[in-house]
Amino acid sequence: MTTQWYVGVDLGGTTIKLAFVDSYGDIVYKGEVPTNTDNEGSEITTDIAKWIDQSLVHLGESKDRLHSIGMGAPGFINMETGYIYQAVNIGWKNFHLKDRLEMDAGLPVIVDNDANIAALGEMWRGAGDGAKNLLCVTLGTGVGGGIIANGNILHGVNGMAGEIGHITAVPEDGYPCNCGKTGCLETVSSATGIARIAKELVTDFPNSLLANEYKKEDKMTAKIVFEAAENNDECALLVVNKVTYYLGFALANLANAFNPEKIVVGGGVSKAGETLIKPLEKAFQQFALPRVAEGASIVVATLGNDAGVIGGAWLAKTQK
Amino acid sequence: MTTQWYVGVDLGGTTIKLAFVDSYGDIVYKGEVPTNTDNEGSEITTDIAKWIDQSLVHLGESKDRLHSIGMGAPGFINMETGYIYQAVNIGWKNFHLKDRLEMDAGLPVIVDNDANIAALGEMWRGAGDGAKNLLCVTLGTGVGGGIIANGNILHGVNGMAGEIGHITAVPEDGYPCNCGKTGCLETVSSATGIARIAKELVTDFPNSLLANEYKKEDKMTAKIVFEAAENNDECALLVVNKVTYYLGFALANLANAFNPEKIVVGGGVSKAGETLIKPLEKAFQQFALPRVAEGASIVVATLGNDAGVIGGAWLAKTQK
Repeated sequence: MTTQWYVGVDLGGTTIKLAFVDSYGDIVYKGEVPTNTDNEGSEITTDIAKWIDQSLVHLGESKDRLHSIGMGAPGFINMETGYIYQAVNIGWKNFHLKDRLEMDAGLPVIVDNDANIAALGEMWRGAGDGAKNLLCVTLGTGVGGGIIANGNILHGVNGMAGEIGHITAVPEDGYPCNCGKTGCLETVSSATGIARIAKELVTDFPNSLLANEYKKEDKMTAKIVFEAAENNDECALLVVNKVTYYLGFALANLANAFNPEKIVVGGGVSKAGETLIKPLEKAFQQFALPRVAEGASIVVATLGNDAGVIGGAWLAKTQK
Repeated sequence: MTTQWYVGVDLGGTTIKLAFVDSYGDIVYKGEVPTNTDNEGSEITTDIAKWIDQSLVHLGESKDRLHSIGMGAPGFINMETGYIYQAVNIGWKNFHLKDRLEMDAGLPVIVDNDANIAALGEMWRGAGDGAKNLLCVTLGTGVGGGIIANGNILHGVNGMAGEIGHITAVPEDGYPCNCGKTGCLETVSSATGIARIAKELVTDFPNSLLANEYKKEDKMTAKIVFEAAENNDECALLVVNKVTYYLGFALANLANAFNPEKIVVGGGVSKAGETLIKPLEKAFQQFALPRVAEGASIVVATLGNDAGVIGGAWLAKTQK
């Protein structure tokens, strides 16, 4: 008998990433289709089913080749029933995702949060390197997270576990966050937060490299901050130190409670590599218990855009 | 066939608490023996075995009545092998606890950390009320903790998970902690930490009720702080607000990551009841995501000294 493949699906606000993944986590075939948010996202499950069928034809394979679908979606999800309470960017509200996709695709479906399946992907085939106690933090426009303990994603009592971005990193006089609180990690360690801090600090350093780049680009981004920091620009280094201080504080506090083996940092900001990781490690060690710091290594995510589909496949492979 | 009992054992620096517990978590018979730390604690496993045998004789029961032993111990433990790296208060170093106790008592043994089995006890028969996502914090001389996710204790990669007392609650200018860091939760929310804060603040309120009680008792304790706070003493209320602000901050940050259904507060300090819980809830809500705060209730532990033996029995009952 030929081995079966798993379908990994990673739904984002702009595109749906899809892949056939073998039982070792290798991507056999992958693609993406635009996310159609018309009619409250009612075409999405059909679009996924069509991609699957067309890809099978293209590969000359039959449906029997596929075992099941593991899918990540944004928003508030009931993981057990695959029911979406709300996914603002997609247009879904009270949407039976699992049931609809099972009907459209004719395969069993398991659904989880998009940040969680990315964490599973990194655990299985990425920077997690098989570590079963793993903390994943994604530094993008916002800050997302997934926590894996003993190989299982933590969901908590109502699916909110892993909301690392809303840990309070600045207890006093913090910046307002979209969530309604102030001083959330997201306000200081997301790409948006980094740019905001840089804009504040750069006014004191009008002749810095960062100030020049800011003028040239006509906008402040995390990217130009880290580039200037790599060139030892004093102002940029101050920004990076501030950002990593807060991130190290939040991650160390989590690590003291959860004792992970790996802390995987992903998202656009993680492209800064060692310029981010080195000062982050320093701050982390300041706030983590020595035995906890010894046990944990901080690494950059390696799967990039494939983390979600590979994690989705893991979910499908291990579903009970 | 008569149902079997589980032996719950809770080892402390002064006494060993022991109980026979039925499969519903009811204590059938209990007792305690002094912890003999002579000869590096080498008599402890024999003392436990003797208590078991004598108690069976006393109850007119045979050894068949017992299924297995679940035991909580302080210190650094390898939970899988039941091996103690070090337990300073007991005198153990590199001690084969599980193997020794199995030989002495002739029953299967499972070992975990003392704070963790207390959390399991509260989950099963105490304030946790069966909640499978539960955060337990013990406010005593120090601050301990246990985290239960999906009904399982989190251990982390080297058994350090749940070290809630060493979450940094005061990021800047914090007080030195025994662990070598500064500003740990333990420095501000343990009985010791509360007394220290009260001693500092009371100098500004020489005519307060708290100042009077302090003079009368000739020492500052968490107990007199909470008693004065109950009587609306301004100084004592300031102390309680400061203490619960830090505790609420640390617990809310954890809750944002773990999304627990119950947060169980135990230990001597928790005897303050609503005088502690009310301001704690306020601080918690300030730092927790609204959906996380909605999902979580903060409650006082109800099992007192029985939490450990009941949790030990749960461990024995559910061991694989």
